[in-house]
Amino acid sequence: LRKEDVRMNARQRVDALRRLMRRQRLSAYLVPSSDPHLSEYVPECWKRRHWLTGFHGSVGDAVVTQREACLWVDSRYFLEAERDLDPRVFRLFKKGLPGTPTLEAYLNRALRRGQALGVDPQLLSRTAADSLEQALAPRRIRLRFPKKNLVDAIWAGRPPLPPDPVRVFPDRYAGESVRSKLSRLRAGLARRAADAHVVLALDAVAWLFNIRGTDVRFNPYVIAAAIVTRKGAQLFVERRKVTPALREALEGRVELRPYRQLGRELKALARAGASVLVDPDATTRAVLDDLRGARLVFMPSPITGAKAIKNRVEIAGMRAAHVLDGVAHVRFLHWMEGALRRGRLRESDLAARIDAFRMQERGCQGPSFETIVGFGANGAIIHYRPEPGRDARVGRRGVLLIDSGGQYLMGTTDVTRTLTIGRPTQRERELFTAVLRGHINLARTRFPKGTKGSELEALARQPVWDVGQHYLHGTGHGVGHYLGVHEGPIGFSERGTVPLMPGNTLSLEPGCYEAGKYGFRTENLVLVAPDRERSRKGREWLRLEALTLCPIDRRLIDVKRLGAGERAWVDAYHREVYRLIAPRLRPAVRRWLKKATAPLR
Amino acid sequence: LRKEDVRMNARQRVDALRRLMRRQRLSAYLVPSSDPHLSEYVPECWKRRHWLTGFHGSVGDAVVTQREACLWVDSRYFLEAERDLDPRVFRLFKKGLPGTPTLEAYLNRALRRGQALGVDPQLLSRTAADSLEQALAPRRIRLRFPKKNLVDAIWAGRPPLPPDPVRVFPDRYAGESVRSKLSRLRAGLARRAADAHVVLALDAVAWLFNIRGTDVRFNPYVIAAAIVTRKGAQLFVERRKVTPALREALEGRVELRPYRQLGRELKALARAGASVLVDPDATTRAVLDDLRGARLVFMPSPITGAKAIKNRVEIAGMRAAHVLDGVAHVRFLHWMEGALRRGRLRESDLAARIDAFRMQERGCQGPSFETIVGFGANGAIIHYRPEPGRDARVGRRGVLLIDSGGQYLMGTTDVTRTLTIGRPTQRERELFTAVLRGHINLARTRFPKGTKGSELEALARQPVWDVGQHYLHGTGHGVGHYLGVHEGPIGFSERGTVPLMPGNTLSLEPGCYEAGKYGFRTENLVLVAPDRERSRKGREWLRLEALTLCPIDRRLIDVKRLGAGERAWVDAYHREVYRLIAPRLRPAVRRWLKKATAPLR
Repeated sequence: LRKEDVRMNARQRVDALRRLMRRQRLSAYLVPSSDPHLSEYVPECWKRRHWLTGFHGSVGDAVVTQREACLWVDSRYFLEAERDLDPRVFRLFKKGLPGTPTLEAYLNRALRRGQALGVDPQLLSRTAADSLEQALAPRRIRLRFPKKNLVDAIWAGRPPLPPDPVRVFPDRYAGESVRSKLSRLRAGLARRAADAHVVLALDAVAWLFNIRGTDVRFNPYVIAAAIVTRKGAQLFVERRKVTPALREALEGRVELRPYRQLGRELKALARAGASVLVDPDATTRAVLDDLRGARLVFMPSPITGAKAIKNRVEIAGMRAAHVLDGVAHVRFLHWMEGALRRGRLRESDLAARIDAFRMQERGCQGPSFETIVGFGANGAIIHYRPEPGRDARVGRRGVLLIDSGGQYLMGTTDVTRTLTIGRPTQRERELFTAVLRGHINLARTRFPKGTKGSELEALARQPVWDVGQHYLHGTGHGVGHYLGVHEGPIGFSERGTVPLMPGNTLSLEPGCYEAGKYGFRTENLVLVAPDRERSRKGREWLRLEALTLCPIDRRLIDVKRLGAGERAWVDAYHREVYRLIAPRLRPAVRRWLKKATAPLR
Repeated sequence: LRKEDVRMNARQRVDALRRLMRRQRLSAYLVPSSDPHLSEYVPECWKRRHWLTGFHGSVGDAVVTQREACLWVDSRYFLEAERDLDPRVFRLFKKGLPGTPTLEAYLNRALRRGQALGVDPQLLSRTAADSLEQALAPRRIRLRFPKKNLVDAIWAGRPPLPPDPVRVFPDRYAGESVRSKLSRLRAGLARRAADAHVVLALDAVAWLFNIRGTDVRFNPYVIAAAIVTRKGAQLFVERRKVTPALREALEGRVELRPYRQLGRELKALARAGASVLVDPDATTRAVLDDLRGARLVFMPSPITGAKAIKNRVEIAGMRAAHVLDGVAHVRFLHWMEGALRRGRLRESDLAARIDAFRMQERGCQGPSFETIVGFGANGAIIHYRPEPGRDARVGRRGVLLIDSGGQYLMGTTDVTRTLTIGRPTQRERELFTAVLRGHINLARTRFPKGTKGSELEALARQPVWDVGQHYLHGTGHGVGHYLGVHEGPIGFSERGTVPLMPGNTLSLEPGCYEAGKYGFRTENLVLVAPDRERSRKGREWLRLEALTLCPIDRRLIDVKRLGAGERAWVDAYHREVYRLIAPRLRPAVRRWLKKATAPLR
């Protein structure tokens, strides 16, 4: 395979890919956005779909045939994809619009019986590969898995794997030793009569081995994978990333192996006839191919559930991080009020500034996702990101939505506040208050242990439905402890299909959006805690505790629309914000916070 | 195989089974409660688990090894199973109690590597068989599927398949012809590039071919199965059940085949290399074995979703049935009030009487499930059935729960009312009102199309949680149109995993129970309807309309605890009950209803 010129345009890239496809007798080639760890955020070296299509959004699958090149994106990326794609080369499919075929339907039409679709087996989970295979089976279209990625073969100048060293994450932050985590995992393997478990998910690897890194933007992950057996553990990571401190920390418990030797060890497991626990949603087809011959136990990885239940140290760390985050946020809000009086600012200025306030706090490593600042109509675009030059100025009157978060060594934060610039309209107050009531209705609920987040979500939606509005995103996602800001298996959304447990941390973020006008969202992180007052033998009850400490804009609250209990919730929340944040502020900012958290009138 | 004596006791039955198992080299044999159609209610001839164990509950799996015979039941059957089982022969496993092993865990311990568990492949769905196989694989315990059911081989005097004739269900009740239903199903097959679909579920067969029968208690089903292809359809049903009217109704569209020829035709499909749409939860392992060689498209049967969306005629029929049902119910309540003044009655007397009142109404074919009448503590036993002789007398003071329903030619009903006998206590009113508020909170909600029932359930639970109570059953199930009173794929419960659609009919039945004291439940059937007032282009909204017409006991409502909107809901509901029911009552009963539906004060 010959590397092509680095300066190829989209047409040349697609044509080069087609030449390779012809040589390999593939009638179509699928280029998904994912990576060999099935990550949400992908390091540069694995952004093949971006390189091929020019589309830089995080989610979107490309398909190339000899006749067409296509990209499927969902509604949040319709505009960006139109801007990024060369329409002479790529056909854009907007998912969910009437008349848009699914990728599977398109392939069933574009390909003939017996033809083959190729895809890199490292980029599809077992579940995804099975479902694609099944969708194509009735028309006898075959799915083929060439070992070499075809885009890599033509992508000259593809960056290498990130070389940054692995950092040891001390037990004083993690709250549990690697030894203890491995022993709990092994007990889970024993219960399922499994001999081994393969770990690909980067957050699971980071959690299990108490390591962190800088390989992925916003997420403190290390590019690494692992095999854990009843007696041993192997961590597959590039040699140049290994430091003496890491060797020392894992000494005697974990063998360090070169990243590229994972496949060889999987085959050895299979040859030994081992019984391997495999999470079908978190394991690639490539790994399953290497495991051929092993006995497979399919179930969700025991790590996912264990990681989602924060231990005492992690919970204390999350609380501490939220105090620092609240201080940064309040300082930012106070600064912004003055700055907007002095002159007009752009959305991207505000985003840069809130990130900078956070970075001044102890332990802050950077934002936990790309900061969203949307003024007026931009606030209604759910995945809006202010890009310098293309962003809006904050006007003299309107609604401003700010969604931001930080990665601290002690924990991860994620908070949305909606603010009014100038006097709000009655309608703005009505909608803001509906969203706030939704937030409070879920935040106050006490529920029996065994309840899933997916079952609770409607409690936040109902007050928003009551004013005729609906939001097209989940009400909350699990949040990691100095790990991913999105973390399974819990959530106040249809993904939250396991019961909530004490120690879970989630976002709670109902919203309401009117296209072309404004968006409202009020987001706190919450901790699931035992409801000791109500629990008794035979039935445990749970409740939610707010972790986020940041005032809710009182000017947007229509107090008449709140019930007595809702009003009391706001006042108690604001008292707590003031109590924990005020002592860390200089007098002028403290006075500002006093007003911002005064009881509702 | 020699038939054993019909008068064998449990010990002899188990021993006879063990002899057969030894001959077939099975170390364990699983006897599930289901039948070859994976039914909820099973005709006598297929009640093998009942015959073997003596336990007569509808759900419970038995396992026999050479050393032990075991039965697993869930909490609703703990007491009955203890009463029914011979403890010298059967070991009872109470599911969900701490320390109770699952059936799979038990087998993994009781059997050794390489040993085999046998089970009739006609009694496990593909999903259940796969999951069992997987649970046993790590210990290399094999699952074997002997074609002949081992219990049948020793069950002398086993009843034959029910011989009752198939009834043609006229289009004027069904609202859609067989031709139209088949053509919609075929369009679904075409979309999935499938050539054929196998239908085992009895309600699906009855719906698709517009037939009804008396083969199963409470459910108007016919024992039959079907294969539908892109061009033809075969209905497999015992010859003696076929009437000339049936032949005429299906003439030219549907081939009638002997019931036992299903397997042969499945094999023919497989030999022809057909692509067959198979619902993995509604298709037995036996059918999949017969289909070996066919290409399989696994997905939920398109019939399930279509059947759940009632057409105009069905909706009008459901409404008409509920008027008749309301009349019967009100006449019963009026009668009961007088009868309880005149003397004490047993729960079973009341059950028999409400069934009798229903049977007097036009089109009523019988109860849609076994009537529940529970006084006081019996009301707290969720699946309580009053058995004459073992049931309680209704006392002078206490709470009475009545859950009953009817099968009418025009539709199916299911209603629960909780009544006070004598003056209620404050605590009784508090709990009743919490349940009522849960009912109203869900009943009043307007929600966007696309919402699933599982997501709405918490709206009914929250007011019950608010008083520290929790109910361990779903909030509602789909209801068929003169078909099963439990029908998928919808529900206000974790089973309701598809979006609700206009035309769906469901129960709405929050409850609250204190063991040893009382149970409260308020159940209406509701229809999912478009919310025309709110729907606009791009977003459709839905709402729920009550179908059930029966007063809610005003004496148990603590009006102070209702919000203004909740109070208005009760009054409006009662006005509607009076408007539709009163004209059909004689004056004395009408006067009673007037009082029972008077506005709240």
